[in-house]
Amino acid sequence: MITVLAGGVGAARFLRGLVLAVDPAEVTAVVNTGDDTVLHGLSISPDIDTVTYTVAGAIDPERGWGLADETWTAMANLTRYVGVRPAGSTAAPEWFNLGDRDLATHFYRTARLSEGATLSEVTEEIARAWGLAIRIVPMTDDRVRTMVDILEDDHVTTVGFQEYFVKRRHSVPVTAIRFDGADHARSTFIDAIGAAEAVIIAPSNPLVSIGPIRALHGVDATLAAHRDRVVAISPIVAGSALKGPADRMLTELGFEASVLGVARLYAPICGTLVIDEQDAEHRDAIEAIGVRCVVADTIMRTPEIAASLATTTLTAAREGARHDR
Amino acid sequence: MITVLAGGVGAARFLRGLVLAVDPAEVTAVVNTGDDTVLHGLSISPDIDTVTYTVAGAIDPERGWGLADETWTAMANLTRYVGVRPAGSTAAPEWFNLGDRDLATHFYRTARLSEGATLSEVTEEIARAWGLAIRIVPMTDDRVRTMVDILEDDHVTTVGFQEYFVKRRHSVPVTAIRFDGADHARSTFIDAIGAAEAVIIAPSNPLVSIGPIRALHGVDATLAAHRDRVVAISPIVAGSALKGPADRMLTELGFEASVLGVARLYAPICGTLVIDEQDAEHRDAIEAIGVRCVVADTIMRTPEIAASLATTTLTAAREGARHDR
Repeated sequence: MITVLAGGVGAARFLRGLVLAVDPAEVTAVVNTGDDTVLHGLSISPDIDTVTYTVAGAIDPERGWGLADETWTAMANLTRYVGVRPAGSTAAPEWFNLGDRDLATHFYRTARLSEGATLSEVTEEIARAWGLAIRIVPMTDDRVRTMVDILEDDHVTTVGFQEYFVKRRHSVPVTAIRFDGADHARSTFIDAIGAAEAVIIAPSNPLVSIGPIRALHGVDATLAAHRDRVVAISPIVAGSALKGPADRMLTELGFEASVLGVARLYAPICGTLVIDEQDAEHRDAIEAIGVRCVVADTIMRTPEIAASLATTTLTAAREGARHDR
Repeated sequence: MITVLAGGVGAARFLRGLVLAVDPAEVTAVVNTGDDTVLHGLSISPDIDTVTYTVAGAIDPERGWGLADETWTAMANLTRYVGVRPAGSTAAPEWFNLGDRDLATHFYRTARLSEGATLSEVTEEIARAWGLAIRIVPMTDDRVRTMVDILEDDHVTTVGFQEYFVKRRHSVPVTAIRFDGADHARSTFIDAIGAAEAVIIAPSNPLVSIGPIRALHGVDATLAAHRDRVVAISPIVAGSALKGPADRMLTELGFEASVLGVARLYAPICGTLVIDEQDAEHRDAIEAIGVRCVVADTIMRTPEIAASLATTTLTAAREGARHDR
């Protein structure tokens, strides 16, 4: 069994490659739910949907989120209500788009949760509806919310992740991150870590995608106990994030926006880091801090490149696992 | 001021005529909320929306509910989830359609209610967004649910109104109706009844559209105290309902599916009944039970006919009001 700790777009692209390289039934994706939110009364799990839709081949390739061939009728009609919304109300948000096709997923999730189903159950049902052979599990069935302190107009405001990421288009400085509820949330996958042949940390934002997963009680300690079979893929290439604000966020929070910065963050829980060819020069520095280093093409321009990266990563995990006895 | 007690389609068509006949700012529509429901986590108020959309000229004229030029993308995609829905789950209902444009209204309502706004406030905001000059108020801000006992396969089942009306297409016999929560729900309009120049009971189902309004604490007694200025329009014409199951329902519950049956139901609270020309022969029988009777063309094929009916109804109310001193 292969366990992949996953955020959104980068993780989804990696998983799409992984299922070409191995039997999908062997793969469990453990997905960040710190970004989950409620809008219009609907329970929205952005990273789970991105992973599900991408592995299903249904994701919109340009946007990287939501469904291909999408229409936006509901959202377009919501603008009618912006003018009558009282001051202080957050109804009819103009800044969060949900496509008409995508809405069906949120409707189903919301209805099932309100019936008392767990998010794990609903996520499994949705994955089945899309014909997926991999398992997709939320990191927890409990409520965890990533909260971001941002610097705006010279003072610090705390906002939910989507208000930072989507509403502010992640263009404001971040001064702190925390994961409300993580202390008491039960992870869904901790028992699987010890049994997994390989644990892969997908090329996702280390702070706000992998961070919430690590923040769950016992997860970091369990990963640390098996760190030789844990392999991460750096989401930072040549000092930049391929997508999203990981590079700026690392710098703003006192880390280094480089493969070495990523290696330092992951060193306690991860025996091997896969870095891009552009960063090959940093290999020795990474190994010097006790993290094995593998160089590969990590820019997943096609599913085939992602599959090749997956094979490289799995090989590294198996190498590492030989030390983990 | 003119107060109209209103259900869905029939009331909405009457109101569209009324606003042609009088200053819309004089009109308050008090709308049944016993049909309200929650689907997909969304708060749905079918009668309020039918009234709002109709007065706005935005209703779909064929269906009589929902918006014109509607698309159904979200609903079409929901069918994907029917196959994975566990036994006993009511998620992804195939029997209740919500158009993509219409969804925006439910999104706004749900978000505002979750912020703590009252249904009255939200309804007023939505009416304003549609540019309406009349006031539309829910009969109560509290939760009232019309429950229907239906006879199916030789035994009686209790279902919510929409499960009777939409899911069963109101084609099963009804053995009882009740209005859960009505005893303790506060009406929004009881104070306005005494101050109104006229109170009009729209041509709506007397049992399940006007019934919930009457069931609110104090409403029937207040209407009775002012019955001379209360005028009803019969929704039954020549023994049949123009739309919906009012005729069958009256018979099933022991009333008469005729203008006389309607007159008996309304006699305690209503001084005048407007009946259709086809029922002119029943005028004396109605007056014999103490209800003044006005004959008019009540089949609102056009807004102009509805306006003429509204003028006739208002004249009758003013006549009646002279007795109510």
